[in-house]
Amino acid sequence: MAKQPAKKPIIDKLALVGIGLIGSSIARVARREGLAGHIAVQTRSADTLARAKALGFGDSYSTDAAEAVRDADLVIVSVPVGVSGDVAAAIGPALKPGAIVSDVGSTKTSVVAQMAPHLPANVHFVPAHPIAGTEHSGPDAGFADLFQNRWCILTPPTGTDETAVNLVRRFWEGCGADTDVMTPEHHDMVLAITSHVPHLIAYNIVGTAAHLEEVTESEVMKFSAGGFRDFTRIAASDPTMWRDVFLHNREAVLEMLARFSEDLTALQKAIRWGDGDALFELFSKTRAIRRGIIEYGQETEAPDFGRTPSAGKPAKPGA
Amino acid sequence: MAKQPAKKPIIDKLALVGIGLIGSSIARVARREGLAGHIAVQTRSADTLARAKALGFGDSYSTDAAEAVRDADLVIVSVPVGVSGDVAAAIGPALKPGAIVSDVGSTKTSVVAQMAPHLPANVHFVPAHPIAGTEHSGPDAGFADLFQNRWCILTPPTGTDETAVNLVRRFWEGCGADTDVMTPEHHDMVLAITSHVPHLIAYNIVGTAAHLEEVTESEVMKFSAGGFRDFTRIAASDPTMWRDVFLHNREAVLEMLARFSEDLTALQKAIRWGDGDALFELFSKTRAIRRGIIEYGQETEAPDFGRTPSAGKPAKPGA
Repeated sequence: MAKQPAKKPIIDKLALVGIGLIGSSIARVARREGLAGHIAVQTRSADTLARAKALGFGDSYSTDAAEAVRDADLVIVSVPVGVSGDVAAAIGPALKPGAIVSDVGSTKTSVVAQMAPHLPANVHFVPAHPIAGTEHSGPDAGFADLFQNRWCILTPPTGTDETAVNLVRRFWEGCGADTDVMTPEHHDMVLAITSHVPHLIAYNIVGTAAHLEEVTESEVMKFSAGGFRDFTRIAASDPTMWRDVFLHNREAVLEMLARFSEDLTALQKAIRWGDGDALFELFSKTRAIRRGIIEYGQETEAPDFGRTPSAGKPAKPGA
Repeated sequence: MAKQPAKKPIIDKLALVGIGLIGSSIARVARREGLAGHIAVQTRSADTLARAKALGFGDSYSTDAAEAVRDADLVIVSVPVGVSGDVAAAIGPALKPGAIVSDVGSTKTSVVAQMAPHLPANVHFVPAHPIAGTEHSGPDAGFADLFQNRWCILTPPTGTDETAVNLVRRFWEGCGADTDVMTPEHHDMVLAITSHVPHLIAYNIVGTAAHLEEVTESEVMKFSAGGFRDFTRIAASDPTMWRDVFLHNREAVLEMLARFSEDLTALQKAIRWGDGDALFELFSKTRAIRRGIIEYGQETEAPDFGRTPSAGKPAKPGA
C-alpha cells in the first residue's frame, strides 16, 4: 500500500501559515487524505519550523510567509487572532490572482476587519473557524483526526465568489468536518457562549483556587476529582491564543458574561435563602443539554468522558 | 478460578444503606476484593432494590434500613445528605453495640450534626467522603474501579475509637482509595472550592446557554466542542444530591462563590480595558495546576481527557 492515497487532490498548492495545533492537524489530514498536490509549511520560529520539518508533513518549509504563499491556490492562516492583520499585510502582495485566503481564528468580526484591507481585490477571502481543539499546542500536538465529526463555520463576506466558498467547504469536508455558514457577528455571539465564556470561567476558578489561604494548592490538586479537574483542561489552553480571543471578541464576551453573572447571582440567592426547589429545577433541566450534545455526536456518552478510573500516574507526590 | 477471592474479609457483615452510584460501587468492589463476609443491601425503593438484586452484588436485600443494619459490623450510608438525619433515626435503635457507622456524604459538618444525635453511645461514628463519582446515577451506574487511585477523606469526631477509624481506613484502602483525615469544617471548605462551586458554575452556564435569544439551543449543542461541552458533564449530575449539597454546605459555598465572583469581575475589567498582560499572566499560571493534578494521579494527561475524536454517535439530528 502506498504511503500517499491515490485520490485526486482538490487543491494544487496549499500554504499553511502557522503550524501549531490547528495548522499541523490540517497538514496531517490533508496529507493523509491527499487533499493537496503540494503542502507549503510556514512559521516564523526557526525552531518550530525545524520541528515541523522533522515531523515531515509538508512538501516545502519556510520562515517567510510571503515565500510560502507564492503560487498557492489555498492559503490557511492559523495564528493567534491578534496577529491576523500583520500576516495579511505580509502575504497580500505575494498572493497569486484567484488565490483563496482562509483562516481558522476563533473570532471572526475582528479577523475580517484586520485582514480584508490587506488582501488584493483579485483574491477570494473565505474566513473559517473549525470548532475543534485540545488543551495542547504546537506542531507535535496536532493529529489527523482532530476535525473528524466536528463543525467548521465559514463566514464569507456577502458577494464572495461561490466557487471559492465551495472549495473551502469541500476542503473541510475532506478533513472530516461538517460545515455551516453564518455572519461573522453571529459567529462571535455563538462562540462567546459555547467557547469563550467557558474558557474565561475555567481560567477564573483555577485562579481563585490557587490563591486561597484556607485551602492549600496541594489540597486543590489532590481532591480535584470532585469536579474541579474538569475545568483545568480548558484552563491549560494556549495563553497567547486566549488572550487574543478575549481582546478581539470583547463585546460579545462581555454581553454573555453579564448574563452568566446575573444567573449566578440568582443561584447564590437561592442558596442563601435555602430555596431547594429553584436549585432542583435548574439542576434537572441541564441534563437535557448534555443529552443533545451527545446526540449531535459532539461528546462521548461514556461516564467521565471515558477517562479510565486510574487515569494519570499512580505516583502521588507528597502522599 | 473461583468467582470470589479467597481473601479473609476485614468485616463480617457490611450493610449498605442506599445503593446508587456510590453504594453500588462499594458493593461491587467489596465483593470483588472479598472485603466483607456478608453484604446487606438496602434502598427504600422497591424498584431500585429489585434492580440491585438482579445485578446481584449483595447477599441479602431489604427496603427496611433497620432490618439491613441488624448485626452489621460496618454500616455505610450512601444517600443524599438532606436525608442523613432521617436514616440515622431509622437505624439508630437497630445497631448492635460496637458497630461502626460511616457515610459517603459530600458535606460533613451538616451530616455530623444530623446523624450524631440519633446514634447510640455504644456505636462508633466515622464520617467519610470518597472523592469520586461520575455524572451517572443509580445502581447500574456503579463500577468496582470507581475509587481506584481516588482519595477518601475521613472526618471522625475528636475522641473517636482509633480501632474503628483504622477499620474504615483499611476498608477504603481495600476499595483502592487513599485516605486522609481532617475536620468536618476543613473538609467542607476544601470541597466547596474543588467540587461544589465548580458544579454550581457548570449548572449555571448550561442554564445561561439554554435561555438565550440570540443563540439557539441547537447551536449551543452543535458548536459545544469549543469548551462548553466540558461543563455539561458535571451539570448532568444527580439533581437531588446536588440540591442537598448546596443547602447543606451553604456558608462555605457562599464564601468561595464570593471569591470566584470577585476574581471574575477583575477579569471582566481586564477585558473591557484591553489589559492583555493581566489576561496572559493568569492564563499562563493555570497550566501549572493541571500539571499538578496529573502528577497526583487524579487526571489523565491524554488530550481531551482521552476522548476519541469521533466521540458520540456520528448521526447529527437536524443537520
